[in-house]
Amino acid sequence: MNTVPPLRFVIVGGVAAGASAAARARRLSELASITLLERGPDVSFANCGLPYFIGGEIKQREALAVQTPQTLKAMLNLDVRTSTEAVALDRAGKRIQVRTLASGTTEWLPYDKLLLAPGAVPLRPALLGIDDARIFTLRSLQDMDRIKAAAARAERVTVIGAGFIGLEMAEQLVRLGKKVTLVELLDQVLPPLDRLMTLFIEDELRRHGIDLILGDGIAAFDGAGGLTCRLQSGRTIAADLVVLSIGVRPDTGLAREAGLALGPRGHIRVNKFMQTSDPDVYAAGDAIESTDRVTGDPVSVPLGGPANRQGRLAADHIFAPQTAKSFPGLLGTAIVRAFGVSAGLTGWSEKRLRAAGRRFRTVTVNDNHHAGYFPGAKPLILKLLWDPDTGRVLGAQAAGLDGVDKRLDVIATAIAGGLIIDDLADLELAYAPPFGAAKDIVNLAGFAACNTRDGLATPVDALPDDPAVQVLDVRPPALVQAHPLPRKGVLNIPLSALRARLNELDRTRPVVTVCALGKIAYFAARILAQNGFRVSCLTGGIRAHWDPRSPAKLPTP
Amino acid sequence: MNTVPPLRFVIVGGVAAGASAAARARRLSELASITLLERGPDVSFANCGLPYFIGGEIKQREALAVQTPQTLKAMLNLDVRTSTEAVALDRAGKRIQVRTLASGTTEWLPYDKLLLAPGAVPLRPALLGIDDARIFTLRSLQDMDRIKAAAARAERVTVIGAGFIGLEMAEQLVRLGKKVTLVELLDQVLPPLDRLMTLFIEDELRRHGIDLILGDGIAAFDGAGGLTCRLQSGRTIAADLVVLSIGVRPDTGLAREAGLALGPRGHIRVNKFMQTSDPDVYAAGDAIESTDRVTGDPVSVPLGGPANRQGRLAADHIFAPQTAKSFPGLLGTAIVRAFGVSAGLTGWSEKRLRAAGRRFRTVTVNDNHHAGYFPGAKPLILKLLWDPDTGRVLGAQAAGLDGVDKRLDVIATAIAGGLIIDDLADLELAYAPPFGAAKDIVNLAGFAACNTRDGLATPVDALPDDPAVQVLDVRPPALVQAHPLPRKGVLNIPLSALRARLNELDRTRPVVTVCALGKIAYFAARILAQNGFRVSCLTGGIRAHWDPRSPAKLPTP
Repeated sequence: MNTVPPLRFVIVGGVAAGASAAARARRLSELASITLLERGPDVSFANCGLPYFIGGEIKQREALAVQTPQTLKAMLNLDVRTSTEAVALDRAGKRIQVRTLASGTTEWLPYDKLLLAPGAVPLRPALLGIDDARIFTLRSLQDMDRIKAAAARAERVTVIGAGFIGLEMAEQLVRLGKKVTLVELLDQVLPPLDRLMTLFIEDELRRHGIDLILGDGIAAFDGAGGLTCRLQSGRTIAADLVVLSIGVRPDTGLAREAGLALGPRGHIRVNKFMQTSDPDVYAAGDAIESTDRVTGDPVSVPLGGPANRQGRLAADHIFAPQTAKSFPGLLGTAIVRAFGVSAGLTGWSEKRLRAAGRRFRTVTVNDNHHAGYFPGAKPLILKLLWDPDTGRVLGAQAAGLDGVDKRLDVIATAIAGGLIIDDLADLELAYAPPFGAAKDIVNLAGFAACNTRDGLATPVDALPDDPAVQVLDVRPPALVQAHPLPRKGVLNIPLSALRARLNELDRTRPVVTVCALGKIAYFAARILAQNGFRVSCLTGGIRAHWDPRSPAKLPTP
Repeated sequence: MNTVPPLRFVIVGGVAAGASAAARARRLSELASITLLERGPDVSFANCGLPYFIGGEIKQREALAVQTPQTLKAMLNLDVRTSTEAVALDRAGKRIQVRTLASGTTEWLPYDKLLLAPGAVPLRPALLGIDDARIFTLRSLQDMDRIKAAAARAERVTVIGAGFIGLEMAEQLVRLGKKVTLVELLDQVLPPLDRLMTLFIEDELRRHGIDLILGDGIAAFDGAGGLTCRLQSGRTIAADLVVLSIGVRPDTGLAREAGLALGPRGHIRVNKFMQTSDPDVYAAGDAIESTDRVTGDPVSVPLGGPANRQGRLAADHIFAPQTAKSFPGLLGTAIVRAFGVSAGLTGWSEKRLRAAGRRFRTVTVNDNHHAGYFPGAKPLILKLLWDPDTGRVLGAQAAGLDGVDKRLDVIATAIAGGLIIDDLADLELAYAPPFGAAKDIVNLAGFAACNTRDGLATPVDALPDDPAVQVLDVRPPALVQAHPLPRKGVLNIPLSALRARLNELDRTRPVVTVCALGKIAYFAARILAQNGFRVSCLTGGIRAHWDPRSPAKLPTP
């Protein structure tokens, strides 16, 4: 390390990455002068909690204000300057110009090391009518207050963008009794997930009365009289309030003007220690371009967890470089709850793998979140993706009523450890009837993946259009009758009768087996394959394709 | 493979390992003749559910009978023989003698491959009075029925042995309104855990009215008139019903008589493919000696998850040896719920590491199970153990009101992946306010471990007896007053005032800092260390040592 303490450390941005860096820096150096600059009036607030205060699930606004300038001074001896904007960066002179918003006065602050943690700004496209005062985005506590006040007067709310924040907002607005329309340009909610894995949460949104409009985007707003959203399809929606949640862009004007290297979409480029193209200037959080943990490709993941760790790592590299560990890259693990259902992902999705032209294989498994014989077992669905050459786990998605977070965390940890599908089969997870199963759904996914790899199963992810293929529904007849497969020409032979009725199938034509969850169809496929049939089975069963809550067996009368 | 299908596969024991092996075998071979022998009247029942049916939390007995001989015949074409005992094994002749319990008739069954999955028997020590009809152990559905019937007539119940099953039984008997005494020879409940990590669940048991007697064992029973349990201390307990849950022994008489290699406590020795010393005889489940995943040492882990996978692997090795993967060994991941609290472990405990003379380091961290600002956050405590030479995670224990299973699963996965403490700090776990935190407790444990490794923190696991050491309580004065530290001579300087009041401490004497959860004490220690003090901090704080529910801050009035 060339610099000798006391060191002047200046941080631009006082929320997740900036506040973490400041706190870590102080633990490493009592002598450093640490200045935390924040354009907004608040530092270190819980921005992930904003939707929940709007909806009233979080009742106390103070709960969101994790720290104040006063507490940060008392606990960490930080010089916190809120409502203070960084307006220019003189890298040659190692100084940054700041403007106090209230007075407009500016001054230059010298630094030895600088951290840029400016975050990201919600997108607000230049559409006709976009400046209407009834159209909001959510970033700060002040945005939150404004939306909460507007919602109190509104009846009809349109949320545009069905990503993580859009879903949280839609849920919380329903909680307030609003009539909510949710508009998404793609043909699914939660764009980072594969479409079939969003059916469960889509079903839950509709069950709670949300008018979900998929495959249509906002075209313009008309604010004459009542506010009207005009969609690309021509459809119009009357709204008293609009929340835009269509994504964010990095807030990196200062970095750009200072000549720091940026990525193609404006993110600040950093190395594995969060150093920008200027080694005395670090960057962290939503504004940076990081690397993908699996492939090393550049990615940006605007989430709180990574921001915190990047800020911490920047402080480590400045104040304790001898022990600082390089950043391992990101998986983009994320989750959302909407009413009773949650859904999320970690690592690569099928759509990303396809777009990147990478080889992969995938299975989808259904199970309960804990042992089915213990009361309260709830359905859970898990999709696993892996590399067929190495067996390494590439990603997973999960959805269900409980236990989604646990399975994502296990697989995120598995990816971090470079585990292969066989390892998932062998994972020794905590089991007592209230918590799991002797074979957890993660183990089942490992089994199913290994079976696929070893040629025991040939999963297909859709029923074939080819009429030459025999579609065989192996559910019990009562279940078939109660919940028929949405397709004509399906044979029904329940698994228990299959060995005796093989002659009803044409051995010269391929067979696809189907059941409620995918498991019995696999059992049937094993029987058929060993009897000389060319057979595949629909992965994830009916639950994964048409009806996320389809029963596996009829309730006992 | 030398044998050619159809193969005669005989399985002794039809519960977890045996039933899993049979099912997997059928999927691999339609042509094999598969015979499943079971001494009891039931196969493939949910033995982990037995306590919950006794207590009425599981209401339907049928829920526990996962399969019947009829369903196994219909679905898997198995020849299931219940109430049939294997009485002799002729390995040279590759045949096994079975006796039908009802008729007493015997016959010899030939096999090409044999799997022994006889399970384990509850210990029933040869104490005076042990044969009293009011003393029960729990293994089968019939044991369950007998205990349930006896409990209906009982008022006072004594459970002997406070392991996993003992705790489940005690909880369920309280649920039935019984007056429950729980006796444990060790000075803690849950013997596999380290004592401090059991305080939370111990507190919960007492809160629910259980008379918990620790450090005392059963000496004898006196059945004259009412049943009296006499303890080693001389104390007596009157009981209408006694449940013995002091452990199990492998049910391996047949294997012993057949000359198969056994471990020192009678477990069947197997290789990584579940083959015994006779390669045509496999063994799996509670009866075998397996290997520790971390060290490779021999261990026996009588749990359902491992039994299922071992049975499956035996079938793989017999019917698909080209793709069978060797067994990776066991972590012994286990969890129990008692009322609102759960506790469990994965991998090595401190007591096992000490007994084995292995080098380790440990930290204990407290946090909430999800973001503290989101309603419903509940306390959670996590102890992490790692190898100081390599940084590899060796084990963990967790206790709390929610989210215990998730953290154990993450760390079990981390151990399976050979992760080091730095990797835990970097894990990217699913975070939205209802599910986790931007820094999950697993990340915090990783941070704390790295800080210890890097010399930033010196955790101690007890307050020193040496009066020369200054004990510094850094909690706010109101909290100190409401929940004082159970010790004299403690200095109180809240963290916010510490920098200004350093002169109240003696720089020539060591300091131990203490707070509610361990985090603020670490912050204080960093200030002191950088000001020249020799300082350590009490790991896990007051919550981990005296009061598992101690508040971190006083509720706002």
